[in-house]
Amino acid sequence: MPFGSPAPVIYILEPYGGSARTQNPNLPHIFFDDSGITRGDGVFETLLVTDGHVANLERHAERFVRSAKKLDLPTPDVEQWKAASRQAAEDWTAACRGERIDGRLGWSYTRGRAKTGIPTAWLTIQEATVMDRATRVRGLRVLSASRGYTMATGADAAPWRTEAAKTLDYAENMAALRWARANNADDVILTDPGTGRVLEAATASIIAVRRGGKLRTPKPVGGVLQGTGQLAIFEEAEKHGWNCRAKDFNVDYLQRSESVWLVSSVRRAVRVAQLNGKKLPAPANATELAEMFDRALEK
Amino acid sequence: MPFGSPAPVIYILEPYGGSARTQNPNLPHIFFDDSGITRGDGVFETLLVTDGHVANLERHAERFVRSAKKLDLPTPDVEQWKAASRQAAEDWTAACRGERIDGRLGWSYTRGRAKTGIPTAWLTIQEATVMDRATRVRGLRVLSASRGYTMATGADAAPWRTEAAKTLDYAENMAALRWARANNADDVILTDPGTGRVLEAATASIIAVRRGGKLRTPKPVGGVLQGTGQLAIFEEAEKHGWNCRAKDFNVDYLQRSESVWLVSSVRRAVRVAQLNGKKLPAPANATELAEMFDRALEK
Repeated sequence: MPFGSPAPVIYILEPYGGSARTQNPNLPHIFFDDSGITRGDGVFETLLVTDGHVANLERHAERFVRSAKKLDLPTPDVEQWKAASRQAAEDWTAACRGERIDGRLGWSYTRGRAKTGIPTAWLTIQEATVMDRATRVRGLRVLSASRGYTMATGADAAPWRTEAAKTLDYAENMAALRWARANNADDVILTDPGTGRVLEAATASIIAVRRGGKLRTPKPVGGVLQGTGQLAIFEEAEKHGWNCRAKDFNVDYLQRSESVWLVSSVRRAVRVAQLNGKKLPAPANATELAEMFDRALEK
Repeated sequence: MPFGSPAPVIYILEPYGGSARTQNPNLPHIFFDDSGITRGDGVFETLLVTDGHVANLERHAERFVRSAKKLDLPTPDVEQWKAASRQAAEDWTAACRGERIDGRLGWSYTRGRAKTGIPTAWLTIQEATVMDRATRVRGLRVLSASRGYTMATGADAAPWRTEAAKTLDYAENMAALRWARANNADDVILTDPGTGRVLEAATASIIAVRRGGKLRTPKPVGGVLQGTGQLAIFEEAEKHGWNCRAKDFNVDYLQRSESVWLVSSVRRAVRVAQLNGKKLPAPANATELAEMFDRALEK
């Protein structure tokens, strides 16, 4: 972190509602027997703090509750999470002393310590790695690769079905990102090994811009997480006359699109400039699109 | 934990070799930005401490190194881990004051704090949940269920292949165990959704005892973790003339076996007494087998 960055803001929440207290970021707060660290048994959200407010708070709160439910965790008190997030964003903004520094707000909620059985709940705001809009329009080098497994459906699905939960289990996604970087790429688009269906990027949703004012995204099924940013963008774009929907498609479809974007809450929307070594030239409307996407993601 | 149990023993290791220091178990030691808690990005092992020593230390150390390699973590200095484990086992045994209390030794090794990029390494010994041999021979009620996904092989596999690593990502396995308990069972045997192939239990390996002195276990491929306990048992059993090997089989094969055992390091081998509602009666040699299995698992 550059000299002079604000210190991370941490709040620890009482999991059944009640108070939130600040935590010194120079001190640890997770115990050895927390199921979050022993088993990855918990859920999380990553939100953008920009211009003094938390973006798309409602969508993240909804997914957070859904994730907790999928994991049979006690339902989090979202009003408490939202209030603590607003308080933390205020603290963050004050610490920035008039400078606009984007924050990455993380919500973490685990099954808690083996000793107590009470969930552990905390949120953090740290300085976001910023990529300016021009760089995002210029774009990323991306590779596609098999995700390595196929989710079963119907009677063959696992009866516990945690697949649509945003759990702490991201070791696989991190391995995918390392692989991309080792192969001279910035990110990776995951595909289903059986069908070649495009799923999602390692830590982002995918949006394809098609001729005739269409936005398309992979269907959020078969282990594809519903992206809060993608939802926000579709809602905004529909107001401006875009035709938006989820659809099954393969990598070839992306290569024949007007433009392809990877969407995540904090990095926002970034154009894919090269896919599997093939250039995807910036379309005339790239900056206009990026502005519309930013509006949706910063709301 | 019953009154009078020894306090957990924790050692924090310097990840590049060097010293190990004790950590007070009443204080937290994991920071908010540790990749182990933010992404499940780390590996672990669970070992048995019994009768003053650490069982099957070499096998666990080998798998630990393999797991770290799969995740592109710096290779752990296993001599340091082994020495710290022996020291911790001594501390544990001393704290037990002459009583024989089995300990569960956990090794944890994460990619570390985002701030430093230095891996976080620690081990803990806690009181093991003990199931005596008679109870283990009497057995468990077990259900089988689809694991919910199929690993792709060959050219369709993910190029990063973390599948054989014992990572912190166990939220799915924990969900499987909760499902079993909600359905009046003690454990769950996972099967491949496409082929019905038996894979492993939620946190244990599977051994089938077959007529003619045969022990069979599912092949450790397609997302099946190689069990250290299963390896130890096969080595011991071969000395006593058992014919041991890995093999593809389905649930029906288990129901036609002389006996079926779930094997994990700390719980040891437990017989399956009921599988999907069907009784699997204890064979005449159940106690003899359990003794042989214990010998292997406690070595």
